[in-house]
Amino acid sequence: MTLRTSITPVRWEDDGLRILDQRRLPRDEYYLACRRPDAVAEAIRTLAVRGAPLIGITAAYGMALAAREAESRERLLACAELLAATRPTAVNLFWALDRQRAVVAAHPDAAPGALAPLLLEEARAIHAEDAAACLAMAAAGAALCPAGARVLTHCNTGALATGGIGTALGVIRAARAAGRLGMVWVDETRPLLQGARLTAWEFARDDIPHRLLCDNMAAALMAAGEVDLVMVGADRITRAGDFANKIGTYGLAVLAHAHQIPFYVAAPWSTVDLALADGRAIPVESRGEEEVTHCGHQLLAPAGTRAWNPAFDVTPAALVTGFITERGVVKAPVG
Amino acid sequence: MTLRTSITPVRWEDDGLRILDQRRLPRDEYYLACRRPDAVAEAIRTLAVRGAPLIGITAAYGMALAAREAESRERLLACAELLAATRPTAVNLFWALDRQRAVVAAHPDAAPGALAPLLLEEARAIHAEDAAACLAMAAAGAALCPAGARVLTHCNTGALATGGIGTALGVIRAARAAGRLGMVWVDETRPLLQGARLTAWEFARDDIPHRLLCDNMAAALMAAGEVDLVMVGADRITRAGDFANKIGTYGLAVLAHAHQIPFYVAAPWSTVDLALADGRAIPVESRGEEEVTHCGHQLLAPAGTRAWNPAFDVTPAALVTGFITERGVVKAPVG
Repeated sequence: MTLRTSITPVRWEDDGLRILDQRRLPRDEYYLACRRPDAVAEAIRTLAVRGAPLIGITAAYGMALAAREAESRERLLACAELLAATRPTAVNLFWALDRQRAVVAAHPDAAPGALAPLLLEEARAIHAEDAAACLAMAAAGAALCPAGARVLTHCNTGALATGGIGTALGVIRAARAAGRLGMVWVDETRPLLQGARLTAWEFARDDIPHRLLCDNMAAALMAAGEVDLVMVGADRITRAGDFANKIGTYGLAVLAHAHQIPFYVAAPWSTVDLALADGRAIPVESRGEEEVTHCGHQLLAPAGTRAWNPAFDVTPAALVTGFITERGVVKAPVG
Repeated sequence: MTLRTSITPVRWEDDGLRILDQRRLPRDEYYLACRRPDAVAEAIRTLAVRGAPLIGITAAYGMALAAREAESRERLLACAELLAATRPTAVNLFWALDRQRAVVAAHPDAAPGALAPLLLEEARAIHAEDAAACLAMAAAGAALCPAGARVLTHCNTGALATGGIGTALGVIRAARAAGRLGMVWVDETRPLLQGARLTAWEFARDDIPHRLLCDNMAAALMAAGEVDLVMVGADRITRAGDFANKIGTYGLAVLAHAHQIPFYVAAPWSTVDLALADGRAIPVESRGEEEVTHCGHQLLAPAGTRAWNPAFDVTPAALVTGFITERGVVKAPVG
């Protein structure tokens, strides 16, 4: 089974980091040229690049850029803080920055310029490890799909969210390669439509049969017997197995449970936060109300309408059939 | 308690029916002038006018228009068929047309021109009865809201959906007037955003505190303890109490049940279809895939993406705490 993707959401070049601007997909495939760490931080904050594993990778490259320009080790470490402050929920971001901080700490006498190639090497290692983790998850998870499986997924967990073929979408790609996939139901994933814009784009590009639905249709789809399993990604998994993922995931888990449909979470081990006992401790990002009141630049509601916009929700471990990781499929508790 | 609304979604004038084009809300308040029954049918089919009670009222007025121009009783009755063929799920449409057919049948020798004033009178009666039913539902339901109630609602069930102050929104208006309402959580209701576009517009206009959320956020909101009850409308209620309503309602009912939150359905008796034993018999309308792949004229997904677009789903009676009708609050079975 050879599994690959032609999608490259971040790409290191000598003059900096190229980031595929996911805000412009599927309309334009436009790469931002990020030459400084604050440009990388801005790309993460504004969701030009997103997906828990991928923002870790991106931040790691950001540190390589930071080392090129930092006047001191203190300024370099301040860049790690800048990158860490972009988004609060996905733990992969902090995990990757901790690895870069460890590189700095391991060379206590090195100036930033001397650290730059080491930080680049570490960023490339994090990137490559994530690509390998995707393949390992795909191998571990594909067998969970019954023949002809109709899989419901949420948000985007593919090449656009990782350093490789994806987490949940990697498993789906492997099931497809193994001839086990029927088709994928793609939740559109309001407010930012990562399902409609990104997952449908990946699937069209890789010829994976799929069909889009609005998030609120999933319950009726399950009741109609059209879903064999649900597979999603994660942004942070606690020791208990409670996990944060894109808003809407928790509702899907409750619905899958009510319809006795298996519910799997695919995520690399870098998503596991052993420091947190359970889901109550996960910080959930609130984003701007205009993401809900608008669709792109189009105002949907009356001007002045207030909205609620948590970017994530927390699903209790009891609703998870299994966690697909690069170490195999595990049950809660995970730590 | 005086409850009224300044919103008039359909208005009879001597030269025909004025229909507030709800597709253009909240941006424009534009009235279509429908002088012929086929224009009325088109307005119903394209959702210029929507809401189960209101499409019954509108179709009834459409028959008054039809009588003005029909060359024969047969042509007049063919117009009833035309109006009935516009949308399949809301039973109020067929109920109202049956009342108009009964007017025709009660005057077997009358020519269409002679029937026109009688059909107009009956349409006005249907309209006035629905307004009265809204007030009776509001009176019956307001006491179900605990003091300071935070009510979650879906789609639009207000003045824009009825001949009066609304079904679920009528109850909410009454709770507000009685000082019992905390605020309303408004599901945006993809794909056509009746919550964001219409319910938020009604609430802004009538100064009812509310906040918008994406449909997939309701589960997290319930888990956070922010919802005291869910109140929705209905398009068809069967004898068993299973009922059809806007897509997404069933999922909300499952979620409310899982969080032990009361779930109420407000609907006039014209929504009850005693001919149907249970929810399996309800015809559910499928609408065009472009409603899901687009938001307004904006293409969301890659060109060519296929979508699933049922306009309604069916909720089993077991998930309903009570039906608020003009005859009081009843439990399933309803017939």
